[in-house]
Amino acid sequence: MRLLLINGNTTAAMTERCRATAIAAARPGTEIVAVTASRGPRVIATRTENALATAAMVELLAEHGGDCDAVLVAVSFDTGLDALREAAPCPVVGMTEAAVHAACLLGGRFGFIGPGEHAFGIYRDVLERIGLMSKLAGQSVVEMRPEDYLDPAAIVDTVVATALDLVRHGRAESLVLAGAAFAGLAAEIQARVPVPLVDGIAAGVVLAQALVDLRPMRATVGSHALPPARELVGLPPVLGRLFAGERS
Amino acid sequence: MRLLLINGNTTAAMTERCRATAIAAARPGTEIVAVTASRGPRVIATRTENALATAAMVELLAEHGGDCDAVLVAVSFDTGLDALREAAPCPVVGMTEAAVHAACLLGGRFGFIGPGEHAFGIYRDVLERIGLMSKLAGQSVVEMRPEDYLDPAAIVDTVVATALDLVRHGRAESLVLAGAAFAGLAAEIQARVPVPLVDGIAAGVVLAQALVDLRPMRATVGSHALPPARELVGLPPVLGRLFAGERS
Amino acid sequence: MRLLLINGNTTAAMTERCRATAIAAARPGTEIVAVTASRGPRVIATRTENALATAAMVELLAEHGGDCDAVLVAVSFDTGLDALREAAPCPVVGMTEAAVHAACLLGGRFGFIGPGEHAFGIYRDVLERIGLMSKLAGQSVVEMRPEDYLDPAAIVDTVVATALDLVRHGRAESLVLAGAAFAGLAAEIQARVPVPLVDGIAAGVVLAQALVDLRPMRATVGSHALPPARELVGLPPVLGRLFAGERS
Amino acid sequence: MRLLLINGNTTAAMTERCRATAIAAARPGTEIVAVTASRGPRVIATRTENALATAAMVELLAEHGGDCDAVLVAVSFDTGLDALREAAPCPVVGMTEAAVHAACLLGGRFGFIGPGEHAFGIYRDVLERIGLMSKLAGQSVVEMRPEDYLDPAAIVDTVVATALDLVRHGRAESLVLAGAAFAGLAAEIQARVPVPLVDGIAAGVVLAQALVDLRPMRATVGSHALPPARELVGLPPVLGRLFAGERS
Amino acid sequence: MRLLLINGNTTAAMTERCRATAIAAARPGTEIVAVTASRGPRVIATRTENALATAAMVELLAEHGGDCDAVLVAVSFDTGLDALREAAPCPVVGMTEAAVHAACLLGGRFGFIGPGEHAFGIYRDVLERIGLMSKLAGQSVVEMRPEDYLDPAAIVDTVVATALDLVRHGRAESLVLAGAAFAGLAAEIQARVPVPLVDGIAAGVVLAQALVDLRPMRATVGSHALPPARELVGLPPVLGRLFAGERS
Amino acid sequence: MRLLLINGNTTAAMTERCRATAIAAARPGTEIVAVTASRGPRVIATRTENALATAAMVELLAEHGGDCDAVLVAVSFDTGLDALREAAPCPVVGMTEAAVHAACLLGGRFGFIGPGEHAFGIYRDVLERIGLMSKLAGQSVVEMRPEDYLDPAAIVDTVVATALDLVRHGRAESLVLAGAAFAGLAAEIQARVPVPLVDGIAAGVVLAQALVDLRPMRATVGSHALPPARELVGLPPVLGRLFAGERS
Repeated sequence: MRLLLINGNTTAAMTERCRATAIAAARPGTEIVAVTASRGPRVIATRTENALATAAMVELLAEHGGDCDAVLVAVSFDTGLDALREAAPCPVVGMTEAAVHAACLLGGRFGFIGPGEHAFGIYRDVLERIGLMSKLAGQSVVEMRPEDYLDPAAIVDTVVATALDLVRHGRAESLVLAGAAFAGLAAEIQARVPVPLVDGIAAGVVLAQALVDLRPMRATVGSHALPPARELVGLPPVLGRLFAGERS
Repeated sequence: MRLLLINGNTTAAMTERCRATAIAAARPGTEIVAVTASRGPRVIATRTENALATAAMVELLAEHGGDCDAVLVAVSFDTGLDALREAAPCPVVGMTEAAVHAACLLGGRFGFIGPGEHAFGIYRDVLERIGLMSKLAGQSVVEMRPEDYLDPAAIVDTVVATALDLVRHGRAESLVLAGAAFAGLAAEIQARVPVPLVDGIAAGVVLAQALVDLRPMRATVGSHALPPARELVGLPPVLGRLFAGERS
Repeated sequence: MRLLLINGNTTAAMTERCRATAIAAARPGTEIVAVTASRGPRVIATRTENALATAAMVELLAEHGGDCDAVLVAVSFDTGLDALREAAPCPVVGMTEAAVHAACLLGGRFGFIGPGEHAFGIYRDVLERIGLMSKLAGQSVVEMRPEDYLDPAAIVDTVVATALDLVRHGRAESLVLAGAAFAGLAAEIQARVPVPLVDGIAAGVVLAQALVDLRPMRATVGSHALPPARELVGLPPVLGRLFAGERS
Repeated sequence: MRLLLINGNTTAAMTERCRATAIAAARPGTEIVAVTASRGPRVIATRTENALATAAMVELLAEHGGDCDAVLVAVSFDTGLDALREAAPCPVVGMTEAAVHAACLLGGRFGFIGPGEHAFGIYRDVLERIGLMSKLAGQSVVEMRPEDYLDPAAIVDTVVATALDLVRHGRAESLVLAGAAFAGLAAEIQARVPVPLVDGIAAGVVLAQALVDLRPMRATVGSHALPPARELVGLPPVLGRLFAGERS
Repeated sequence: MRLLLINGNTTAAMTERCRATAIAAARPGTEIVAVTASRGPRVIATRTENALATAAMVELLAEHGGDCDAVLVAVSFDTGLDALREAAPCPVVGMTEAAVHAACLLGGRFGFIGPGEHAFGIYRDVLERIGLMSKLAGQSVVEMRPEDYLDPAAIVDTVVATALDLVRHGRAESLVLAGAAFAGLAAEIQARVPVPLVDGIAAGVVLAQALVDLRPMRATVGSHALPPARELVGLPPVLGRLFAGERS
Repeated sequence: MRLLLINGNTTAAMTERCRATAIAAARPGTEIVAVTASRGPRVIATRTENALATAAMVELLAEHGGDCDAVLVAVSFDTGLDALREAAPCPVVGMTEAAVHAACLLGGRFGFIGPGEHAFGIYRDVLERIGLMSKLAGQSVVEMRPEDYLDPAAIVDTVVATALDLVRHGRAESLVLAGAAFAGLAAEIQARVPVPLVDGIAAGVVLAQALVDLRPMRATVGSHALPPARELVGLPPVLGRLFAGERS
């Protein structure tokens, strides 16, 4: 199977890190097609950047999604998830959504850690949309300096302390570590906390594989049916592929 | 005061209808500055179009928001609301969010009516984000043909029947009629139902005025603080105005 | 427009402070008609006093509500709100309800601060009735001595510390400061906290104005329709005005 | 033990029906002291009447509560429940609250039936305050003519049909029949429905007895601690008994 | 009346402690029939033991439930509660469920204290099934050594400190102390905390008595109707008594 | 990988149907080890049978779980799920839980269909424990005769009609068809409904595979840590394997 990994950030180094994590998580036979937005925020960290990245991500789907079996949204805000799910001919999962579902399937309530004080409320909204708030043991922030987004290794200690606090006082039985920026650090942190740490990219890959294996029918009614033919103005023609109505 | 009404659809006729409704609702001294997206969907009716419209709406804010006192999102999906709220230097309200808050302030649970079967789930998400689900008496759909979006007068009877069902069986004590497409029909429908019908544009105008009157401080921390200086790639330079950090 | 401000406490000095705040928040052309209960608790701070004040507040509505355009309940427990809303011919808002709605319209979750340990649970009930609990970042108490209710200036430092704790640890993005006792202190506290502080009286005034501007129809069915003709025993005749059934 | 049954309606015939039901439900040794409000609504059926009755009910507690072991609020809106619970030296239960708790202890979700379209939203608020909404299978209305409130026997067929609908379509596994007006009809209706029907007065009596048996300590902190000494203006002196602070 | 107290632990000393507490709580005329599981965990403290105990508890019901008027589940995980409630011909209450309902009927939100870090999540599930989560002020753990389960007196200080923290910071207005292991300590702890402490066995006894007094009809439809005739394989024949279908 | 499929029913024919569905859903290289309870209910359809089956399922885990990579609970009540998850050294998923999570990952709200009026409330409890109630579009029952449990083909028409009702009126965007009894019918029904139909066994297999791929650490604290050494009385010695404390 081919899994399209869409990085809505315009930083190719992040895509590479996500791709490496995805390959390590994927089973043999899964090809990871990782693409990077060509315009938009360097690193999505605000609501405004989230909005600016969405359209570009839909375009990436139009360009690359045609022969893929599943799509993974490789932005920890699950940017554009509902639109991509509606428009793609195949299953789509968000990395944070995937991590939360996987954590819940492991049992108990999960703790959630995200980078940056500004992002706390954005992640809160992401979590509420997923719908598993009664399983949230606590949500914490790891403060990050701009350089940490490119090399977060220096903050492993802080992440571990935050994680242990969620376990000891919040009684979290699993942890979700959000932020594409953390991709690649999971193993090091996991070794120091007593509950499973779920990485969004890894969870996204295995759940995307699971949905492909399930061979679900595509809904033909409802808000996730393929969008019907619609009229667009001044947008790249490639988007037309997504609005062909009942495609065969 | 100047109220920037942002229509994310690229159909200028819709902007005109919204502007007329807004002017009728506004008090003397409120200037309505209504702008239309120059690229994007003709009429936003799917999740994908919602995503495609968001970035253009942020650009409209960057271009026109500088000297405005409040912003009204004139798309019934409250498209881009959280991003616009973060980026704007002034209060921002969404038309559906405004209608729901106003309905709740009138007392009792509200019924919600939206156009189009495909949009039911999209509106559900909009309602859940607002956070007043315990006040939702029921959500119904009015099926619409494409031409109805430009001239919905023919479907007033259907809307009234749907509304009465929500009142009689759902025990709704107020009604929110969503969809920019319905702008202008509120009076005719109101005359035939026994509970207050709240129009999104009108509610948005009066609540935006209220927030301006309140003169709230701008948060300098949290997810609705103004976005700090950030690096964008390949986007219109005007967007830079929104990322100047702590502006004075 | 005429806004009837009903103080259910029998302390006229509180009415004066509320009136001053209301006038400062009101737009030109809004007349504030502030009335004080002539019997009942000096300061409502318990559930029992709340109950004892309600009937007197309904009587004040019967006496003064005839030619008003909106009513503001100037007790931070939103005392009698649902009854006043049913009985009044015009929109009615509670000061705490108004502050919570306004805070949510500014974006993010709000922190709530109220005076007195005994009142914590009473405010909890007030908040739950409003229905925006998923937006509550945290609820805190400021302990008060009896004299503080008449001159709360001395406790500004405590309020600020409590507010900063809600912002830093609860991640509140706005604050609601409840208690008619705090009326007049908002500006001083606001200057020392990094998120908007919403004052109940001010929010109540601007939202009441907004609802009047909206010109909503009065429901003729449901639990907020005007009460029909009913039989009362041993109560002041003026209350009869509220039970005239379908008044014209 | 002595159980004070407070009827907030001024209709003595209703008190008599409640007293008879209470005696039938009480165990030997429980004395039912039933009192009727001397001023207020003839029959509480609106929010306004609810507000007008509350103060009078608190006065009844002050007059008659001194040597009672528990209090039962015999109004199906649980009128003044939180105030009476704060002010009384002994346990207090509301008849609807009691019925809902008892229904849940029998297992499964309950259906709720109340009289009068106007009251639907009032009962909704009562149910939400109780906090067991996830156990609500459905809420229905039985329309009533004024004379039905005094002699509801004629509407047994309608109640039964409503009840069966809640069982068959709402999958209710128990039923709460609210309204003091229905006191005395439970047996007749029960014989015709396949799930337990819980009467508020009977449930209130047995749960009040249970709380007395439990001999709970009185909270000395929090919002249900006895109200401290407070200053009242122009109210009957008997109310002073409720505000003596830490009574021995 | 005869109250069957089922201890799913195989430790007879625990049954004796529960029986003593039950007798102290019961009113004259209530006979406590206390039975102990003959196979299963010595002390149920994990999810696995919970599962292993359930079938044995159903067998105890089949053996002893025939002439009882009510059943009390004397395991603080409310082990097997829903099955026993379905199978028993009479009302069934769980000790933790009973304590939570009783606490809520006393007013305000309750704090919950349970023994053992491992059990925190198990109690969380128990609480969520009860359905009164909006009334939960906080949930805390008292760490216990194995010997504490047989003689918990030494940890009274720790329980009191935990309780006071729930009152002071969580604003709990009542406390539920879970764990059959704590049976008998309630009085000593109560004397040192300022809000009512509800003991599960005592609450279970008084609520079971209340339900018997209520004389509820047995549902003949729904998931708590008596189980119809069913085919079992390799189980003790006494269980057949529970599957006789519509028994007379 | 080896996937242990535990059928808690004692009907081997059901195990065979589940095994066939599991094999069809599994990817190459996944071995399905399907085991059947040797004592207990023939078909689990009541709460009591659920309780009677649990201990036997734990024994099956003790006997067969040692060299498995994941466990699938093949009873649609997710019988014993939390205990098996605690006790197993590997990931455990319930078939209904898996179907619900998979449905939510496909987007939108799901409809739920289960067999038998008696089971409605049992499934409701199963759904509430999963924690995705805000995504539940509706829950319906398909009435079944005893013979249908062995050959449900005859009721495909009824299931389809029920499913279409959930789609058309409940606006379900996916469907979960619960009940091991339906195993094998999914394809036939799917062909006649316009939204994806998720089969519990198939979803359980693909999600179990996903969790194995994720290689999650085993929690060593919390309520899903492996149970420590505990003392059992009169139970099969094989259970001792599950209580060895920190196993290597």
